[in-house]
Amino acid sequence: MPHLHLEYTANLPELDTDKALLRLNHALVASGQFGAEFDIKSRAVKVESFRVGTAMSPRGFVAVRLALLSGRSPQIKKQLSESLLAVLQDLGAWPADVQVQLSVELLDIDRDSYSKVAIG
Amino acid sequence: MPHLHLEYTANLPELDTDKALLRLNHALVASGQFGAEFDIKSRAVKVESFRVGTAMSPRGFVAVRLALLSGRSPQIKKQLSESLLAVLQDLGAWPADVQVQLSVELLDIDRDSYSKVAIG
Amino acid sequence: MPHLHLEYTANLPELDTDKALLRLNHALVASGQFGAEFDIKSRAVKVESFRVGTAMSPRGFVAVRLALLSGRSPQIKKQLSESLLAVLQDLGAWPADVQVQLSVELLDIDRDSYSKVAIG
Repeated sequence: MPHLHLEYTANLPELDTDKALLRLNHALVASGQFGAEFDIKSRAVKVESFRVGTAMSPRGFVAVRLALLSGRSPQIKKQLSESLLAVLQDLGAWPADVQVQLSVELLDIDRDSYSKVAIG
Repeated sequence: MPHLHLEYTANLPELDTDKALLRLNHALVASGQFGAEFDIKSRAVKVESFRVGTAMSPRGFVAVRLALLSGRSPQIKKQLSESLLAVLQDLGAWPADVQVQLSVELLDIDRDSYSKVAIG
Repeated sequence: MPHLHLEYTANLPELDTDKALLRLNHALVASGQFGAEFDIKSRAVKVESFRVGTAMSPRGFVAVRLALLSGRSPQIKKQLSESLLAVLQDLGAWPADVQVQLSVELLDIDRDSYSKVAIG
């Protein structure tokens, strides 16, 4: 832990996922909440089939979910979320004709049943 | 929020994901639980590599996860889940030789650490 | 339920996902925690865009998330997690030049709002 998932809709093809993930990981390291940079595992997935709401106007989203071990305070979690959103906001510009929503959610993962091993 | 994920196995290729997502979003709007249709962000993903159980007979699934901000009552959540399952049931017919499981799960997302911004 | 997700990074191409999912499902059946083998729904996804930490050395991961209905004891959940990790550890060998992390997380899904139907 932590595990970070970034999803972005296919109508935002100019998103540089390599840059995005590296910046997000740097923000997590800078938070001081995680013991080793090595523990941060992040991935980006392009979503080809999607629908925002029910209207037909062009819309898209970039959605980040950060799964982290349970036990951190509400204040820390809020700060983490806002720091990741700030990274997403810096990634633009977005297409002018697409309404884009950026979001960050945090998900507590049960600490006692998390298992991990590192190899090599 | 909410965020909806639909997964379907590759042996159900006749699933019309555009139609499915639009109907699911309409069901969420109709629930009256979400302030703006614009907030509903849904995506569908085809699963190419999968296994149901341990038997070798043809099986598949359509699995919906609805992530929504914490705080709603058990009764409301149960109604939301059942309304989404009803949409999935209306999407058939499914292949006659595949045992298909349809499921809907709800996942509470911590309200205090959810961050969002809309652009454009 | 349960639903199992396996993600693996694209620099671990020798992972045999068919074998992995079948073994993971057998481990879940063997746990005695699930009423019918038919209920176990598992999938594997290759992650093409990823970043582990902030260093540039070759790194990868195999991450399993098991979503199961709420109500099981911490002891049972810890045993499930460890049995799945043991399966992952048996899947190697991994590339000698990649630092690989194997992990298993468990996620409780609200039992009351879970809806399911089986067809065929």
